[in-house]
Amino acid sequence: MFRFDILASSKKTSARLGKLHTSHGVVNTPAFVFCATKASIKGVTMDHVKNAGTQMVLSNTYHLLLQPGGDLIREAGGLHKFTGWHGPMFTDSGGFQVFSLGYGGVEAEIKGSQQFIGKKTLLKLTDTYAQFRSYVDGTVITLTPELSIRTQIDLGADIMVAMDECTPYHVNKLYTANSMEKSKKWAMSSMRTLEKYGDRSQALLAVIQGGVYKDLRSESARFANEHNFNGHAIGGSLGKTSEEMYDVIAMTSEMLDRTRYTHLLGIGGIEDIFAGVKCGIDTFDCVNPTRIARHGSVIVKRRELPDINKRHMNLNNARYERDHSAISSSCTCYTCKNFTRAYIHHLLKAKEILSGTLISIHNIQTMNTLMEDIRTSLKTDSIDDAYHDWCSA
Amino acid sequence: MFRFDILASSKKTSARLGKLHTSHGVVNTPAFVFCATKASIKGVTMDHVKNAGTQMVLSNTYHLLLQPGGDLIREAGGLHKFTGWHGPMFTDSGGFQVFSLGYGGVEAEIKGSQQFIGKKTLLKLTDTYAQFRSYVDGTVITLTPELSIRTQIDLGADIMVAMDECTPYHVNKLYTANSMEKSKKWAMSSMRTLEKYGDRSQALLAVIQGGVYKDLRSESARFANEHNFNGHAIGGSLGKTSEEMYDVIAMTSEMLDRTRYTHLLGIGGIEDIFAGVKCGIDTFDCVNPTRIARHGSVIVKRRELPDINKRHMNLNNARYERDHSAISSSCTCYTCKNFTRAYIHHLLKAKEILSGTLISIHNIQTMNTLMEDIRTSLKTDSIDDAYHDWCSA
Repeated sequence: MFRFDILASSKKTSARLGKLHTSHGVVNTPAFVFCATKASIKGVTMDHVKNAGTQMVLSNTYHLLLQPGGDLIREAGGLHKFTGWHGPMFTDSGGFQVFSLGYGGVEAEIKGSQQFIGKKTLLKLTDTYAQFRSYVDGTVITLTPELSIRTQIDLGADIMVAMDECTPYHVNKLYTANSMEKSKKWAMSSMRTLEKYGDRSQALLAVIQGGVYKDLRSESARFANEHNFNGHAIGGSLGKTSEEMYDVIAMTSEMLDRTRYTHLLGIGGIEDIFAGVKCGIDTFDCVNPTRIARHGSVIVKRRELPDINKRHMNLNNARYERDHSAISSSCTCYTCKNFTRAYIHHLLKAKEILSGTLISIHNIQTMNTLMEDIRTSLKTDSIDDAYHDWCSA
Repeated sequence: MFRFDILASSKKTSARLGKLHTSHGVVNTPAFVFCATKASIKGVTMDHVKNAGTQMVLSNTYHLLLQPGGDLIREAGGLHKFTGWHGPMFTDSGGFQVFSLGYGGVEAEIKGSQQFIGKKTLLKLTDTYAQFRSYVDGTVITLTPELSIRTQIDLGADIMVAMDECTPYHVNKLYTANSMEKSKKWAMSSMRTLEKYGDRSQALLAVIQGGVYKDLRSESARFANEHNFNGHAIGGSLGKTSEEMYDVIAMTSEMLDRTRYTHLLGIGGIEDIFAGVKCGIDTFDCVNPTRIARHGSVIVKRRELPDINKRHMNLNNARYERDHSAISSSCTCYTCKNFTRAYIHHLLKAKEILSGTLISIHNIQTMNTLMEDIRTSLKTDSIDDAYHDWCSA
């Protein structure tokens, strides 16, 4: 089953409070979705993921297609049984990774901050498929919308995403237009595949492409609105600066059927989330909370930062060597209740992987607390108060 | 506080059922002690360590002296507060690592299977100190019995160990004799340091040295028995084969004041534990259960092994790729209740560190179950039944 209810809408912005109903439970929105890329949230057991207030987890079709394969996960009873995450589960289409890994970094591409660098794995791109080299064993894989959707059906996700080309930033408008048209075709193939092999208990999102171009986003949105998708995922290049990104999100969001659920792909900064929620985004995903944790970076409210010009608290810093306080005195996560900054600083210095686990738990709970604060603020249409609490120095 | 009660003694062997009372709780013996070498059980949060039935944790004075330092941990409120392990805590003297790391591998040295290889960090060894180079920052550290004990007092362990020279295997009897005499002197210095700076709420164990030589072990035991130690730790070289090791343990154990608690340093194979318990050993420690876990090796009863000539189940093996059963159908650990062999095989293949966490949890609980089974068997003086259950094919 899948249903999206809007419980309250802001009169000041496009923000809304909602509820996603899935076969594996409810997600109160706006919500953050945590990345279990290869069917594991790196270094964190699912009981800690759940206890930290997580509502939904995202796994990557691209990675799981290569290893261990959708058929194996279907045989295992789906991702829920396989991973031990029994709540709502989201999978992307794989297209995102084919292109982002194919061209270079993922986030860098969305934000336009990077030329095509890195090891390119994309071999061939046609109107009907993308061919790439597996990073696992070097074999050539042909990803079609049909393969993506059949794999997502095998994975058993509650919310899946139509195959798209994640249009890179460093291409011209013509490329972006052609790419968007291709994504429309792939979305229709995705829908047909789901109708043939699935039962629509799994939701299917259309990806809205079109880069930074209003007319292209508009056409992509028109197409999505006109077909029977369960919601939208805003993807592709969102511009080069935060301001440009907010403009693209705002512009795109306005064009969408607002009764439908809308996800923003791959964006998870706190400022970005506030901007996204105000544009009507319901869910966000990003690897950052757990990725930066493994490098010692901690998410806290801005006023808790020792240096308000930095985005995170870096526990590698020597200033924490003898700091016997919790990461955050207001946080109730497992890490903050039991451990100090000095202990985690020691673990980082001693290269003990528990540091990544403990910071990940804190970062997950902090993102969930952020979203809860945003939801609470939306009940009284006062998101600016929540913004002030999280983002003022 | 520290007290050791013997609740039952076997009539057939030297095994006994006991209870260690410490300031941080009780340890039912025989028990296994898990290694949190650098104040962390690698990749496992302490709630999982505890839920897996763990009674006592061991941290290494040597590693913690180098990083972050005893004074910092004292300032943090001791190891219990620092690590979040609030139960009984054991620390070794540091001497063990100075010599084992100084000469080569640790376990290899005890078991005599290795010539002096590896990076030697031991610089100088005199009657009063051992000087070595820190593997953390290259500085020269002079470890004396006084520094070892003052550090252990700072760490706040419930059970600490007198400074000793862990005599390597590849030395002659004269070296072993001189080394044992030196350990006696260091033990007395350790005792004096504890009496000067501590309050004896922390127990102090004498290390029994003397290599494989009966007369030397006898002299080491006589010395320990005659002084006011709270118990014994059998250390040093135990010979080259399992049989020789069991002989050395049996011979040494017989010489000890049997009213006192006895720990066997660094040994943790299942067969070895049965042999040790029968010789009167009360507690064991070994890094193996968590170390092998990080490489994919799982501890199960022998009859659960796919290949009874192997000691462990290796989940890297391709045979587990589509094996959707739990590691062990009889195990009730977090891992076995929630995950399959196929999932952990996938995690290993995908290089997801969660594999090490999940197998560690299983291996910890399995070792605790083993010890519980042994304790239960000792109530009816039937350890051979437990041995049969765990070690028969």
